[in-house]
Amino acid sequence: LCFVGECCCLAETRQNGSNPNIIIMLMDDMGWGDLGVFGQPSKETPNLDRMASEGMLFPNFYTANPLCSPSRAALLTGRLPVRNGFYTTNAHARNAYTPQEIVGGISKDEILIPEMLRKAGYVSKIVGKWHLGHRPQYLPLEHGFDEFFGAPNCHVGPYNKTFRPNIPVYNNSQMVGRYYEDFRINRASGESNLTQLYLEETVKFLRRQAASGERFFLYWAVDATHTPVYASKRFQGKSQRGLYGDAVMELDDSVGVILKELKTLGIAENTFVFFTSDNGAALTSGIQAGSNGPFLCGKETTFEGGMREPGIAWWPGHIKAGQVSYQLANVMDLFTTSLSLAGLPVPNDRAIDGLDLTPVLLNNTIIDRPIFFYRGNEMMAVRVGLYKAHYWTWTNSWEEFKQGVNFCPGEDVAGVTTHTQEEHTMQPLIFHLGRDPGEKYPISVQSLEYQRVLKQITPLVEQHKNSLVPGEPQLNMCDLAVMNWAPPGCEKLGRCLTPPESAPWKCEWPH
Amino acid sequence: LCFVGECCCLAETRQNGSNPNIIIMLMDDMGWGDLGVFGQPSKETPNLDRMASEGMLFPNFYTANPLCSPSRAALLTGRLPVRNGFYTTNAHARNAYTPQEIVGGISKDEILIPEMLRKAGYVSKIVGKWHLGHRPQYLPLEHGFDEFFGAPNCHVGPYNKTFRPNIPVYNNSQMVGRYYEDFRINRASGESNLTQLYLEETVKFLRRQAASGERFFLYWAVDATHTPVYASKRFQGKSQRGLYGDAVMELDDSVGVILKELKTLGIAENTFVFFTSDNGAALTSGIQAGSNGPFLCGKETTFEGGMREPGIAWWPGHIKAGQVSYQLANVMDLFTTSLSLAGLPVPNDRAIDGLDLTPVLLNNTIIDRPIFFYRGNEMMAVRVGLYKAHYWTWTNSWEEFKQGVNFCPGEDVAGVTTHTQEEHTMQPLIFHLGRDPGEKYPISVQSLEYQRVLKQITPLVEQHKNSLVPGEPQLNMCDLAVMNWAPPGCEKLGRCLTPPESAPWKCEWPH
Repeated sequence: LCFVGECCCLAETRQNGSNPNIIIMLMDDMGWGDLGVFGQPSKETPNLDRMASEGMLFPNFYTANPLCSPSRAALLTGRLPVRNGFYTTNAHARNAYTPQEIVGGISKDEILIPEMLRKAGYVSKIVGKWHLGHRPQYLPLEHGFDEFFGAPNCHVGPYNKTFRPNIPVYNNSQMVGRYYEDFRINRASGESNLTQLYLEETVKFLRRQAASGERFFLYWAVDATHTPVYASKRFQGKSQRGLYGDAVMELDDSVGVILKELKTLGIAENTFVFFTSDNGAALTSGIQAGSNGPFLCGKETTFEGGMREPGIAWWPGHIKAGQVSYQLANVMDLFTTSLSLAGLPVPNDRAIDGLDLTPVLLNNTIIDRPIFFYRGNEMMAVRVGLYKAHYWTWTNSWEEFKQGVNFCPGEDVAGVTTHTQEEHTMQPLIFHLGRDPGEKYPISVQSLEYQRVLKQITPLVEQHKNSLVPGEPQLNMCDLAVMNWAPPGCEKLGRCLTPPESAPWKCEWPH
Repeated sequence: LCFVGECCCLAETRQNGSNPNIIIMLMDDMGWGDLGVFGQPSKETPNLDRMASEGMLFPNFYTANPLCSPSRAALLTGRLPVRNGFYTTNAHARNAYTPQEIVGGISKDEILIPEMLRKAGYVSKIVGKWHLGHRPQYLPLEHGFDEFFGAPNCHVGPYNKTFRPNIPVYNNSQMVGRYYEDFRINRASGESNLTQLYLEETVKFLRRQAASGERFFLYWAVDATHTPVYASKRFQGKSQRGLYGDAVMELDDSVGVILKELKTLGIAENTFVFFTSDNGAALTSGIQAGSNGPFLCGKETTFEGGMREPGIAWWPGHIKAGQVSYQLANVMDLFTTSLSLAGLPVPNDRAIDGLDLTPVLLNNTIIDRPIFFYRGNEMMAVRVGLYKAHYWTWTNSWEEFKQGVNFCPGEDVAGVTTHTQEEHTMQPLIFHLGRDPGEKYPISVQSLEYQRVLKQITPLVEQHKNSLVPGEPQLNMCDLAVMNWAPPGCEKLGRCLTPPESAPWKCEWPH
């Protein structure tokens, strides 16, 4: 068995040449219902729909937390945020992430997919949004990636640099500019060529790797569907859905270009591709939000709309075309599955939540396992088979809600979409997601079905809770001094800003 | 030009042998979101999904009224219910239909698809639910069908015969038994072989017609997804969605059998098939209801959930495989399109609301036209392009709602899903269905977009209203004496019941 830091792994991998390249396509705030194949009425994702028809569709694919940073940390570590530190203990059941003020980031004790894959000779690149911490020690090249083109944080403001720095864009270890200054996103029109830049970087990388024959891991974490949503001129006005739809169409087009490039380069049959999103559509964004299809609420919540993600696996010649897998799966499985595909064992010095999906992918088997739905430090819900039990319900606070922040616009299920944190740990709300994917009809606690299901679920939850050792929370402290004032490379560009004095505080996470 | 009752039509039809057989598959209370291809998470309709991939998908297909009888009358006459008489003037904006007490039915002055097709030599059969009146003069064989296997009304109770007769099942002009007595639907288990009976009748018909070479029109109006939902033993427990899903799977299987049979018989390339449903999923049925996907509310309402229907056209060798048409289309188009396919002109002595979809089907062109959303005697809304303007909003009354009758469970859009009839005729609520398919965000009346769209829509609505000549309402009077006490054929079976004395009253339509 291999331990981190040892060099035994490579020797132990399957050396038969069957270990494929790995591409993980992670969308930002894209919803389950944004794909034609998942019922978007405008049917504007022909490339993703084709990817599904050439591969395997996962209608039951989940994230690990209904917010960006924890979801991404979980994907790359194979571990729940409550284990890998991407959560807060400042308050109960709060979604925390990595804005510029955050002091923390991904711990050096965590092992990320590219760190492992390096042991099997893979070259790893991230294109797009990192979101696992922006201070130097947290950047991608410190955590296993060989290359980085993109940004450490979300492409949110300040849009000018009066009060706080704009987010830097990196090429590998050096900042090459900042959003809104050098990398333009027109706030009025939503025009930006960023998706095209990311695509260009990607295609260059694929061609180089194909030429070299070196195995690669590409983490394509594009963010055009995160507010402020953007699209290139060529795609603006193309969608029936407005700018958001234009962004989806541009990303869909990029997926098409990438898959086609893999075929052209002759490496399609040696490249495993998985498409998903970091959390449900951000319904708070109103008319420029994505769609969670028939599911309840969205981003920030542990209802299906916040947690259920599009999932498509593609690997011509290995994954049979046109399949649907009902496997309950999640982003953390991509860690374990990537290792398995690379012939690597998972680290055995820590709890890993991800499952090896290769039997599912190759034989369409079903592996029985629960899915846990976390919000910050709390396990809010669990899914077992077609049933989902909510131990805590919460959308957001009345205070926020009354100010117009609505995670479930147009939706109101009494006793379910609550605006106070409601504890149901003694008697969870249980839904049958087959009959009731919208989580509207809690099963009567008096019913035999409820009793039967509760008996089945309870030991799984107890086992999970009893064995859970929470990691050191990384998202508790904030400090204006840690913002992107002077990222590496700023000197060369003459673009360094002067940070204020350090004055850390406990971050406030309102929901 | 041809007039009804004249014999000129046949001579004028295209005699080149290209006029295909026509099959209209009309589901009962099945929702847009019940098909895998439209995003049902359980993806349990492989045959319909394949039908779509071999044909043309219509994501913008509508009914003419969010309730069964008027929808079916509209489909078969090509005319809005307000024209063909399938509405009530007893109260404003009420959905009326044909329960057993109804005195009226389809007027002899209306011309139905099979009456027209007969002129072109087609043999017509209806299998399943008629719902255009159950009194002798209203039955299918009086309105152009050559054959009838099914029932005149819904398969609702009484379940016993204490208070009122059970619904008869006909074979052509003769009753052959009654639901719950001779044609069993197990109310406890939901088991019934009716869908299989309907399939058997259908396959027999197809084989006979293929052998004879006579052109045919098949109206396959199966009703397993209408409450009380039923499925055959073979399909029970097969779905992830409970009994409702079992029923969907059985119907999907029947679709597969029928399409396969067409291929086996060598008539697939000469048979046009269209699949749709009569109205949106009946969300009042709670956990045994279908799904309207991302759309608002369901059956009985003029929101998208009540009016938008699954639409799939299939005609191998003529309709190119794998297409999506964004055409705004509706059930009345099936009248005009059927006539066009048969080489017949439409009657020119009356207003016809249906459009000839053949250019859409054969060339994927888009024809600009509005879609009107009626509830009883009121035009509630109109769709023009991607915009929809609501002139009236109403779900149901507070009285009903407080008794638990909910047409929009879990959904509540302030000022939209109203429980009083709200008039907006001077300033309609306008939605952009591309950006906002769920009708959650009315466009601000102050916006330029609103003003522009209103200017575009207003003349279309005025033209429609000004030229509209309502037909004689057929659904105003009820009478216990007209129920199915003694249907034709009951004597032979010794199954006649004695009707009470006639005592007509004005039917009450609560919503």
